[in-house]
Amino acid sequence: MTDVPAAARTRVVEGLSGLRIETPSWGYANSGTRFKVFAQPGVPRTVHEKIDDAATVHRFTGAAPSVALHIPWDAVEDYGALADHATERGVRIGTVNANVFQDDAYRLGSVCHPDPAVRRKAVRHLLDCVDIMDGTGSRDLKLWFADGTNYPGQDSIRRRQDRLAEALREVRDRLGGNQRLLLEYKLFEPAFYTTDVPDWGTAFAHCLELGDRARVVIDTGHHAPHTNIEFIVAVLLRLGKLGGFDFNSRFYADDDLMAGAADPFQLFRVLCEIVQADALRPDSGIAFMLDQCHNVEPKIPAVIRSVMNVQEATAKALLVDTAALAEAQRSGDVLGAHAVLMDAYDTDVRPLLAALREDAGLAPDPIAAYHRSGHADRLSAERAGGRQAGWGA
Amino acid sequence: MTDVPAAARTRVVEGLSGLRIETPSWGYANSGTRFKVFAQPGVPRTVHEKIDDAATVHRFTGAAPSVALHIPWDAVEDYGALADHATERGVRIGTVNANVFQDDAYRLGSVCHPDPAVRRKAVRHLLDCVDIMDGTGSRDLKLWFADGTNYPGQDSIRRRQDRLAEALREVRDRLGGNQRLLLEYKLFEPAFYTTDVPDWGTAFAHCLELGDRARVVIDTGHHAPHTNIEFIVAVLLRLGKLGGFDFNSRFYADDDLMAGAADPFQLFRVLCEIVQADALRPDSGIAFMLDQCHNVEPKIPAVIRSVMNVQEATAKALLVDTAALAEAQRSGDVLGAHAVLMDAYDTDVRPLLAALREDAGLAPDPIAAYHRSGHADRLSAERAGGRQAGWGA
Amino acid sequence: MTDVPAAARTRVVEGLSGLRIETPSWGYANSGTRFKVFAQPGVPRTVHEKIDDAATVHRFTGAAPSVALHIPWDAVEDYGALADHATERGVRIGTVNANVFQDDAYRLGSVCHPDPAVRRKAVRHLLDCVDIMDGTGSRDLKLWFADGTNYPGQDSIRRRQDRLAEALREVRDRLGGNQRLLLEYKLFEPAFYTTDVPDWGTAFAHCLELGDRARVVIDTGHHAPHTNIEFIVAVLLRLGKLGGFDFNSRFYADDDLMAGAADPFQLFRVLCEIVQADALRPDSGIAFMLDQCHNVEPKIPAVIRSVMNVQEATAKALLVDTAALAEAQRSGDVLGAHAVLMDAYDTDVRPLLAALREDAGLAPDPIAAYHRSGHADRLSAERAGGRQAGWGA
Amino acid sequence: MTDVPAAARTRVVEGLSGLRIETPSWGYANSGTRFKVFAQPGVPRTVHEKIDDAATVHRFTGAAPSVALHIPWDAVEDYGALADHATERGVRIGTVNANVFQDDAYRLGSVCHPDPAVRRKAVRHLLDCVDIMDGTGSRDLKLWFADGTNYPGQDSIRRRQDRLAEALREVRDRLGGNQRLLLEYKLFEPAFYTTDVPDWGTAFAHCLELGDRARVVIDTGHHAPHTNIEFIVAVLLRLGKLGGFDFNSRFYADDDLMAGAADPFQLFRVLCEIVQADALRPDSGIAFMLDQCHNVEPKIPAVIRSVMNVQEATAKALLVDTAALAEAQRSGDVLGAHAVLMDAYDTDVRPLLAALREDAGLAPDPIAAYHRSGHADRLSAERAGGRQAGWGA
Repeated sequence: MTDVPAAARTRVVEGLSGLRIETPSWGYANSGTRFKVFAQPGVPRTVHEKIDDAATVHRFTGAAPSVALHIPWDAVEDYGALADHATERGVRIGTVNANVFQDDAYRLGSVCHPDPAVRRKAVRHLLDCVDIMDGTGSRDLKLWFADGTNYPGQDSIRRRQDRLAEALREVRDRLGGNQRLLLEYKLFEPAFYTTDVPDWGTAFAHCLELGDRARVVIDTGHHAPHTNIEFIVAVLLRLGKLGGFDFNSRFYADDDLMAGAADPFQLFRVLCEIVQADALRPDSGIAFMLDQCHNVEPKIPAVIRSVMNVQEATAKALLVDTAALAEAQRSGDVLGAHAVLMDAYDTDVRPLLAALREDAGLAPDPIAAYHRSGHADRLSAERAGGRQAGWGA
Repeated sequence: MTDVPAAARTRVVEGLSGLRIETPSWGYANSGTRFKVFAQPGVPRTVHEKIDDAATVHRFTGAAPSVALHIPWDAVEDYGALADHATERGVRIGTVNANVFQDDAYRLGSVCHPDPAVRRKAVRHLLDCVDIMDGTGSRDLKLWFADGTNYPGQDSIRRRQDRLAEALREVRDRLGGNQRLLLEYKLFEPAFYTTDVPDWGTAFAHCLELGDRARVVIDTGHHAPHTNIEFIVAVLLRLGKLGGFDFNSRFYADDDLMAGAADPFQLFRVLCEIVQADALRPDSGIAFMLDQCHNVEPKIPAVIRSVMNVQEATAKALLVDTAALAEAQRSGDVLGAHAVLMDAYDTDVRPLLAALREDAGLAPDPIAAYHRSGHADRLSAERAGGRQAGWGA
Repeated sequence: MTDVPAAARTRVVEGLSGLRIETPSWGYANSGTRFKVFAQPGVPRTVHEKIDDAATVHRFTGAAPSVALHIPWDAVEDYGALADHATERGVRIGTVNANVFQDDAYRLGSVCHPDPAVRRKAVRHLLDCVDIMDGTGSRDLKLWFADGTNYPGQDSIRRRQDRLAEALREVRDRLGGNQRLLLEYKLFEPAFYTTDVPDWGTAFAHCLELGDRARVVIDTGHHAPHTNIEFIVAVLLRLGKLGGFDFNSRFYADDDLMAGAADPFQLFRVLCEIVQADALRPDSGIAFMLDQCHNVEPKIPAVIRSVMNVQEATAKALLVDTAALAEAQRSGDVLGAHAVLMDAYDTDVRPLLAALREDAGLAPDPIAAYHRSGHADRLSAERAGGRQAGWGA
Repeated sequence: MTDVPAAARTRVVEGLSGLRIETPSWGYANSGTRFKVFAQPGVPRTVHEKIDDAATVHRFTGAAPSVALHIPWDAVEDYGALADHATERGVRIGTVNANVFQDDAYRLGSVCHPDPAVRRKAVRHLLDCVDIMDGTGSRDLKLWFADGTNYPGQDSIRRRQDRLAEALREVRDRLGGNQRLLLEYKLFEPAFYTTDVPDWGTAFAHCLELGDRARVVIDTGHHAPHTNIEFIVAVLLRLGKLGGFDFNSRFYADDDLMAGAADPFQLFRVLCEIVQADALRPDSGIAFMLDQCHNVEPKIPAVIRSVMNVQEATAKALLVDTAALAEAQRSGDVLGAHAVLMDAYDTDVRPLLAALREDAGLAPDPIAAYHRSGHADRLSAERAGGRQAGWGA
């Protein structure tokens, strides 16, 4: 890494210092497909143990200081105490994810359901989640709705939009302080004909109606084939409506693989848009979150790897020679501009990141250090018995 | 068709009476792929002959009273005289399509080009098109931009959005009377990495900034795989920003096949959203246009077939038992609601349409009548010599 | 339906008389997505009750005389007794589906697993399934493998092919009498990077190696976006390697919606290839099966509807004026040939099918008759208590 | 690059020494989309000038010693003289690409056309191409057919397959010496409903029938969305039927961008399959070719960049620690195996490649050297006047 110029190195060091990646509590639990959930040894049984795992990831990476909750999966009696548990472990509770798709009442939807009683039940859960945020000190309520239909004619697309808008307004009105509503879109699954918030345009239109507290969140696995995600990032940033990311990667649909595993060049391009808009800073209001499943691989190392992948993509984005890029773009030098970008991408930033970690008192290779620590074996031993956490738990 | 209830029949008759389908001047010209344009006998040499062909389609269908122009393909000295030519033939000039993608200056874009001189040239062409609208009495300026980039890094996504917004504002300010700006989006082609207006969300955001005169137009072939088009129709109608359609069909990308040829059920579903929002009426401001290529098939019969396909899909949409549908949706009867829709779709509406045509003094089967007329042979004989119109002409 | 010529009507009657549609035992059980399985009232608790439901579908449609098993979901002690139960109910046991994806051992695959012990276990299960076929008198063993990998590098694509080939040979060697092996392919899910039999080419290459007893089965929901399924049907028929279908429909991925619900025109085109190759006859060796999930809709009516959809598509395919089609194709009349096909598709065949049902002593509208029968209510009452069947049961 | 172990470095040096990348004559000519072909300064007017450009690329890269022809675009009177011209310039003539899609006769197909006279004409052209191969000393005849249909019903899928098989047999019978037939598949374009060789399975089935001289060629831009190309590479290698590659890259359809520009990780994975099967050696019979268009960027530097991208991906593939990979795969260590692959991919191989070039007497940075050379300006000056080559020329 001797060949990275000093100025570029400084840019990377400063840029990365502000990067905080939130990990998801459910990323430490068992998950799978409709075909099978394969249990793994050492998986947490409680939300406290999930927080412990998030703290472990932060201990090895130094870059993952908060953990997102999923309600009701992570429901407890006393959220203040839960926040204290996190603090004791060296992390804090981040975004609250509201789950309105697993009650039997939600077979045909939640806030978009044709029956007002079901909608009421769903909205009440969302409002409860804001109470939880008050308890945990969380800023963001993340809303993903599984709502949709499976067959043409099943329900009115338009009436479902009206119901959605009404529910969102009610939630928005309940927010206080610096609290925000992040609205997530997804092309399909579990609904297979219409989904009520299927694309960024729909999420954007609702957030616009809702005003300043509402922003769009981009899950990188939730798009139609061929969608250019960095374009959406750039456009939402320009419109002032990007709230954050759920990072993961995919080859097919919402595969929820580790961030950066399927198309590292795409992750780099996404982060280039963030860097070029100077939106890496914590005060830009962009939440950088992971949202992934580890169906066949061990979970803690998978999260560590994902955090590192986001760091490496960010470092490369920070290496881009902005002045040279702008000049080549201005003059219409297609290959020259492309080469400036690729020069950053092709650079091996791992030595630089290793050095930064050592400067911060961390092991240069977090995965190797984790394996050496024997932590996985300890967890397997300690977490025998009880019921492992999963999506249904 | 004896089994269509009288009330439903009345609904169809009234609904169809307001349906006007605009045909595109370029649909009568030669077209093809990057691999080859196959010339066809009898193809028009001039815009006047294209208008003649549009008039022929209207004569046989009674449903296609206007023809869209493409500038500069259809540029003439005197647009008032051109409008008179159309009137004499029994049609009128409709939407003006501005083409800013075929000048050598536009290699890297038009209104989004990094060079302000190129942007100026492009905007000037757009303003010229409004002059043409003044001359032809056209209401709508349809804007599709081929702008985009082929390689990551080639240009700044965000700066291109700013340039686009600026150009659109200038055009909007030039509009008068009842004139409108219809903004079309397209996923890709001819640009292969970013496209500056790739999706309805981007078009919508710009139209929102531009105000009441600006609306989104949906080309049914311009979406990512798996996109639910009727959802976009419903959402844009709800947001008051649907301006119209470019109908065509596709199996793969922007194939530009005849409307209704690839997925007739989809065309039906799109028209169901129109009918259910009562947007079929001419005063709803929705422009129903064809935009297709006839690379291997004869053009006039292909346009007649497309007009008939849209009519049949509309008739089926009008047959839907709205009350039964709403009741099934309200009660959560998934299969019942789906069955109401399918019952309309599965109905053979051709006898009803044939009867309506006869009531209107038209041949019941426009295609058969066209073939019987010997018109194609006459065109082949009359249009010998000269240079056939195409996309480059 | 007075306008269907007598000759065409005869063709439809004869063609449909040979059409047998096999329904899947798991189509009567609860199913869902990784997000939630919504239980439904009246769902079977045992394989015997699943067979009862299949018999109900056959009683109302007269076209679904066999039911497929899924092992181990439908495992019993005495398969001869199970076959007798089916016979008593008026149906028979059809294809045996081998499930090697739900044991904890299969986390990284079954017959392609890197560990030979796991492969042995999987092959043993496949051989057990042939024993079951001996017991039930089934002809076909249907093999779908969930095998694959989630991450680049996870395993060797090529070595997994070798392991697959070895396992298939062992199973093939065990077959006797008229028994066959049907190999199913699927693009992805549950594996998200490579799938070991992802496309028809791979399935075909293996079946070719295996010889006459092995054929490819096409699940209509298992393809990449934009795949032309009727093309694969035509090509496999030409190569003598089409074994059958798992019918269902999809808008996105493997949605497993009711056959014909998402794209009825596609289902028609598929059946046109079957009819044109004269492969509708039972002795052609093509197995027509349903393989779908009914996540939000009641299951028995959904299966009845699917059977009817396949019948309607088949009836339309039989209506195609083959001579006129061939003549138009031969002369290069693109629109004429297309019109011949569309003329059949646009015909409403429901009155004809209703008449045929009445001729056979069935109710003309099977769904209405089912609802009138009160059967669903009886099932809900009778099947209270116990554990409902699902994918995991 | 001090951190690449010596053994790995040796592997890279030896592996790369055998890598020969063929460039396409049409990659130096003007190209574009159906919307516009933008002319560029300095573009060749003749096949001789195209060969000169290929020689220029070889002079700067040392890795592109042959150039593919496209007939009739590159038709000349005397092919022996053309081969001599190439030899004088330091390159040789490689694959002959037969073009049967630009004659007016081919509107409905070439070798699959319903009219036997058209098929005859097409086959005659293919046989002429073998004559040309005799003249140029080419080993490979590359066949890509634009054949297909645009509308359901337009022609018989099956009969077209029969016609195709017959034509291919006739060509196969004409081959002599070491001549081979490479059959290319493509999902769609220019045909928009069926394509007669749409996927590797179809190409494979035909090649199997044709015997040893026939092999499948993979164009990396010719697949359905989500297709795993490296899987096809592995499977065709296992089946002994991989003939070569047409490298290019794409974000959407057949975009024909520079190889490695859209998804460099995919290119790496493809080359990993080649390396792991030891198929990089020239005697493996795998032809490594580029097939791309440079619509907006200068052509010679674009080809140089593409050659370098393939070299870099190959170098990374050669860096993979095969023993560690196999061990991790064998033991089911998902993350470990993935990490071995990523470790190679994340390595910056540019310094090593620069060193290798210098060892070979080349400039370490071919693009910079090309720009310094002033060659582009000379070409622009020298090639004024005349008619620039393009797809139609």
